[in-house]
Amino acid sequence: MQDTRGFYSIIDYTVDGPQTQLELIEAFAGLQEKWVRFYPGYKSAHLFASTDGSRVYNIIHWDSEEAHREFERVSDNAARIAAIQGAIDSLKGKAEPRMSGPPRYRLVREVAPGPRPTDA
Amino acid sequence: MQDTRGFYSIIDYTVDGPQTQLELIEAFAGLQEKWVRFYPGYKSAHLFASTDGSRVYNIIHWDSEEAHREFERVSDNAARIAAIQGAIDSLKGKAEPRMSGPPRYRLVREVAPGPRPTDA
Repeated sequence: MQDTRGFYSIIDYTVDGPQTQLELIEAFAGLQEKWVRFYPGYKSAHLFASTDGSRVYNIIHWDSEEAHREFERVSDNAARIAAIQGAIDSLKGKAEPRMSGPPRYRLVREVAPGPRPTDA
Repeated sequence: MQDTRGFYSIIDYTVDGPQTQLELIEAFAGLQEKWVRFYPGYKSAHLFASTDGSRVYNIIHWDSEEAHREFERVSDNAARIAAIQGAIDSLKGKAEPRMSGPPRYRLVREVAPGPRPTDA
C-alpha cells in the first residue's frame, strides 16, 4: 500500500458462507461503481473475503476527511442507503452488518518491514 | 493503495474510548516490530482508529498466503499470542476482540475511480 494518507470507510459484514461472500462482494463493487467512485477525492475500494467464508470487508479510501464530508454533502445519501439495503435484501444468502458506529477511520500508524529486535 | 495482491490479516477491536484506541494502536505497532515485521513476505501493517473513538483495526499485508503460512510455521506463535494477550491485559482501558473466525483474508475485488453511470 502506498500513499495511504487520507480517510477511510471500513464496512464489515458477516455472511452465511462463501457463496454469499462473493455475491455480497459483487453487490458492493456494483454499488461503488453506481454511487460512489466518480466523486472527487475517491481513491479506491478494496473488497476482502475471509478464507473461512464468513466475513466480508469493504475498505473505501478517500483523499481526505473533507473529500468524504463533501461526498456526503452533495450525493444522494438516502438513495444510496436504499440501494445498499436493496442489495443486501436481494442476496440469496444472509449478510449481517458488524459496524458498531459510523464507519469512519483515520490511519494512525504504519509499520514497515524492519529488523528483528536484537533483544528478542 | 498499490500492489494490493497478496494476503491479509484483519484484526478488529472495540475499545472504550479514544485514549484506549491510541494506547492499543501503540501496543499493536510495538507487537508488529517485536514479533512480525522481520519475517519474509511481510509488507506492512496499517493501524486505523474510528473517528468516534470506539474501534481499532490492524490490517497486516503479506506477499502471499504461503508467506503467511510460513510465518506461522517458523515463528513462536505461542509466545506471540501471549505477548498480544499481555498487551491487551495491560491497557488502562478495555478492548474487546471482534474477530469471528481466523482473521485471514484474500483481496477479491478492487474498484478504481471511474465515470458516473450514464443511466444514473
